[in-house]
Amino acid sequence: MKQLDYFFNPKSVAIIGASHTPGKIGYAVLANFVGSGFQRKIYPVNPDTTPILGLKVYKSVLDIPDDLDLVVIVTPAQTVPDVLKECVKKKIEAIILISAGFSEIGEEGRILENKCKRIIEGKYTRIIGPNCIGIYDAYSHVDSLFLSRERCGRPKEGNIAFISQSGAIGSTILDWLTEENVGISKFISYGNAMDIDDCDLLEYLGDDEKTKVITFYLEGIEASGKKFFDIAKKVTSKKPIIVLKGGKTEKGLKAVFSHTGSMGGSEKIYSAAFKQTEIIEAHSWEELFDFARGFSTQPLPKGNRIAIVTDGGGFGVLATDEAERQNLQLPEPSEKIKKEMAKVLPAYATTHNPIDLTGDADANRYKVVIESCLKSDEFDGVISITLFQVPTLEKEVVDYIVELQKKYKKPLLVCSAGGKYTRELSDKLIQNGVPVYSTPERAVRTMAALVRYRIEKNISL
Amino acid sequence: MKQLDYFFNPKSVAIIGASHTPGKIGYAVLANFVGSGFQRKIYPVNPDTTPILGLKVYKSVLDIPDDLDLVVIVTPAQTVPDVLKECVKKKIEAIILISAGFSEIGEEGRILENKCKRIIEGKYTRIIGPNCIGIYDAYSHVDSLFLSRERCGRPKEGNIAFISQSGAIGSTILDWLTEENVGISKFISYGNAMDIDDCDLLEYLGDDEKTKVITFYLEGIEASGKKFFDIAKKVTSKKPIIVLKGGKTEKGLKAVFSHTGSMGGSEKIYSAAFKQTEIIEAHSWEELFDFARGFSTQPLPKGNRIAIVTDGGGFGVLATDEAERQNLQLPEPSEKIKKEMAKVLPAYATTHNPIDLTGDADANRYKVVIESCLKSDEFDGVISITLFQVPTLEKEVVDYIVELQKKYKKPLLVCSAGGKYTRELSDKLIQNGVPVYSTPERAVRTMAALVRYRIEKNISL
Repeated sequence: MKQLDYFFNPKSVAIIGASHTPGKIGYAVLANFVGSGFQRKIYPVNPDTTPILGLKVYKSVLDIPDDLDLVVIVTPAQTVPDVLKECVKKKIEAIILISAGFSEIGEEGRILENKCKRIIEGKYTRIIGPNCIGIYDAYSHVDSLFLSRERCGRPKEGNIAFISQSGAIGSTILDWLTEENVGISKFISYGNAMDIDDCDLLEYLGDDEKTKVITFYLEGIEASGKKFFDIAKKVTSKKPIIVLKGGKTEKGLKAVFSHTGSMGGSEKIYSAAFKQTEIIEAHSWEELFDFARGFSTQPLPKGNRIAIVTDGGGFGVLATDEAERQNLQLPEPSEKIKKEMAKVLPAYATTHNPIDLTGDADANRYKVVIESCLKSDEFDGVISITLFQVPTLEKEVVDYIVELQKKYKKPLLVCSAGGKYTRELSDKLIQNGVPVYSTPERAVRTMAALVRYRIEKNISL
Repeated sequence: MKQLDYFFNPKSVAIIGASHTPGKIGYAVLANFVGSGFQRKIYPVNPDTTPILGLKVYKSVLDIPDDLDLVVIVTPAQTVPDVLKECVKKKIEAIILISAGFSEIGEEGRILENKCKRIIEGKYTRIIGPNCIGIYDAYSHVDSLFLSRERCGRPKEGNIAFISQSGAIGSTILDWLTEENVGISKFISYGNAMDIDDCDLLEYLGDDEKTKVITFYLEGIEASGKKFFDIAKKVTSKKPIIVLKGGKTEKGLKAVFSHTGSMGGSEKIYSAAFKQTEIIEAHSWEELFDFARGFSTQPLPKGNRIAIVTDGGGFGVLATDEAERQNLQLPEPSEKIKKEMAKVLPAYATTHNPIDLTGDADANRYKVVIESCLKSDEFDGVISITLFQVPTLEKEVVDYIVELQKKYKKPLLVCSAGGKYTRELSDKLIQNGVPVYSTPERAVRTMAALVRYRIEKNISL
C-alpha cells in the first residue's frame, strides 16, 4: 500500500473542526462524508462534544479509540500547528488541510506555513493543502469538498483523474461533469502544496489502476520544472496527461501570482516543454474534457486516416475544414467500400469522404456505412455526425453506434447538438462509452489528439 | 410593404402537396403551420380533397376563393413546373419551394430548375428554394420546416436572424437555441437559391426592424462576390453580420461542392473579404451564437478597457490570458475604485484586474464591485465570472447583475458553468438579457468581437 492510498481509500476519517452549525465549512465537510456513501468510520472532532448528525464527537484526535487513516482539518489557521502536533503524535499518515490563511495571504501566512512544515518534517504524516478543497474520490466516496451537493454535483465512477490547483475551477468542472454524465476516478485540489505537490500527485496517478487519463489545470509548477517534466515524461508513456495551463500570457501570469503565488512562465516555454514530454495541451476547460472523454473511452487509432459520416452536409464541410487544419487524412473510400455503401444509400447521397447520408438518412444507413469503414483497413477511426433532428432517423441509430464501437477496436466519436430529444439520445451514447461533441470542430480536434498521442508515443497496440 | 414581407408575414398560406399521411413531409409542413400558432388562413392543396386536420382541401390553388400571400410547395420535382404555372396565374407573390431533385442532383435537375426559373421570369412571383427547409418566423409563426416540434424545438421571439444554406445545420441550431432560451426573429434556409439568394436576404434583413443581428452559415456565395460584399458593407454599417464560413480549406471546399454545388473559395481570400466589409467571422457554430447573443443583448463598448470580476481565481487567470490574446486592455482600477471595493472586500481579495472576490464571495461583493467599474469612466465593459457553486453566494446575485446591466449602457457578460443549480440561475440571467458563457475564453472573445465592431465601424453611440 502506498502512502497516498490513505488519502483516497482510508478505513477511517476524523474531521477536526467539524461544526454543529449548518452553513459552516466544518459542518458541510462532515455532512458530505456522512451523505456521500463513505462506508467507513467517521469521527468528528470539536471542543463541544454534543453529537453532530448523530455521531459521537471527540475533543481531540488523541481521544479517538481507533487507528485513523485520514484526517481533514478545517480549523482556523492559527490553531493548525497545535492540531498538527496531535496528529503527528497519533501517527496519522494522511491529512487534508482545508484551512486558508497561509502563504497565499503573504508574509505572516508564510511563516505559519513554514512552522507547520517543520512539525511534519521527518515524520510519517503527509499533507494535501492548505488553502484547498481537497479530495473527491468517486469510488471510496472520500469527499472533503465543502460544497453542498445541491449546488455542486459529484461525478459518477469513471477513469478520468482531475487535478486542479484552483478549487473554484475544480468544483465548477465537477458539477459540469456530473450534469454531462462523465465519470471520474479521483479529484484533487492541492492548494498551496505545502507538502504533497504536483509531482507527487502525477506519480501516484500514473500508477493508479482506476485512472486511465490524467487531466490537470495547472497555473505554476510547485516542484522544480525539471522534476515535474521528468515525472510527466515517465507518466505519459503509461497514460495520457492533458493539461490546461493558466497564466500563459504575461498579463495572465501576473494574475496567477495574485491567485496562487506560484510562478507561471511564458506561453512558448510551457508549450515547448509540454510537447517534449508529450503532455497534451488543451486550450480551454471544455477542450480539456473533450480530449479526456476521448482518451477515457476510445482505443487509440493506428494512424490518421479518418472517415467522416454525416446526415448534415454543412457539418460535414466544417469537420473537413478542421480535419485539414489538424493534419488528419480523409481518404477517398475504395470502390469495394463504395459498393457496400451503395446498397443502402440513395443515388443522391455522397460516397466521397465526408460521406453524406443526406437529410433523409435512416439508422440502417449509419450502421452499414460506419461498419464498412471500421472493418476495412482503409480507415483508422470514424467521426459520426448524427443530427437526430432528421425526421427519418430512428432512435435505433444509438444502439447501432454503441454496438459498432464495442465490436471494432477503433475510435468512434459522435457529433450531435440540439434540445431535449437530442439530449436524451446523446445521453444514451455517453452512458455506453461513446463521447458526443457539440460541434464538428470539437470532435475532430479530439480525434487529432488521439492520433498525435498514438503517433508521438509510438505506442504499440 | 416589401415583396419579401409576403414570405414572413402573409395573411394566408396554401400548402401544395399537403398530405393525409402522418410521417410524410406534406403532412408535417401542414401540421406545423396548424400547430405553430400561425393565426392566418391555411389552405391545404391535394388532388384528394378529404379534409386534413379538420381543414378543407382544394384540388388546386386556382380553386381557392381567397387571395394567397404565400404558397409552400412540397410536391415531387417533376410536378413543380405545372404547379408553378398555376401559382403565377393566381398572382402568388411568395413561394417556398421545399421539393428536392433540382440542380443539386446534377444535369437533369439543372434543366428542370431552369425550366422553373423561366416560368417566373418577368412575373411578380418570387421563390425561396428549391431543396430547402424554408422559413421559420418566430413572430408570425410561418413555419415551413418539415421537422416535428418534438425532435426540433422552435426558438422564442428575439432579434437574431439566422440564414443557413444548409438545412440540417439550420434545424440543429434552431433546436439548440430553443434549449438555450435564445430568441430569433427569422430563420431562412434557401437551398439552391434558384431565385431569391443570399444578397436578397441580406438586404432584406438589413432593413428588418425585428432583426438586430444577422447570423449566416455560408458555404459559397450564390450571387457574384462583388455584389455580395457591396451589400454586406452597406448592411454592416447598420447592424452586425456574423458569418460562419464552411469550406474554407481546400478539402472543405471539395466537400462544399458535393453538398450544395456552390463555389467555396480559399480560407485567406474569404477572411480578407470579411475583414474589408466588416463582417464578423466566427470559427464554429457555437461561436456564431456566442457573438450573436452578445450583439443582440448588449450595448457596444466605447473602447477596449475591460474589468474582469471573478469568484474563481483560475477562471480569472484564463480570462486574462484570452484578453491579452484578443488585445483587450485590463487596466488597474484607480485608487478611488479600489477604495469603493475595499468597503465590501476582505483583505485577502484582489483589487487588481482581474478582481478576485475569492471563493467566499457573496452577492453584495459582486454588486458593489461591478457597479464601481460600470459607473466609472475607467472601464468600457465588464465580464463577471460568477461561479454559483461558491457556498456563500446568494441567488440575489442574479438580480443584481440584471439590474446593473439595465442601469448602465455598457456591455456586461457573464461566465458560468455547472449543473442543475447553475443552469437555473443562468437561465434567469439569459431570460433577462444577460448572455452567459460556459468558458472565460468564450466570454472574452465575445467582448472582443463587440469592441472590434465598435472600433472598426467607428459607430457613434
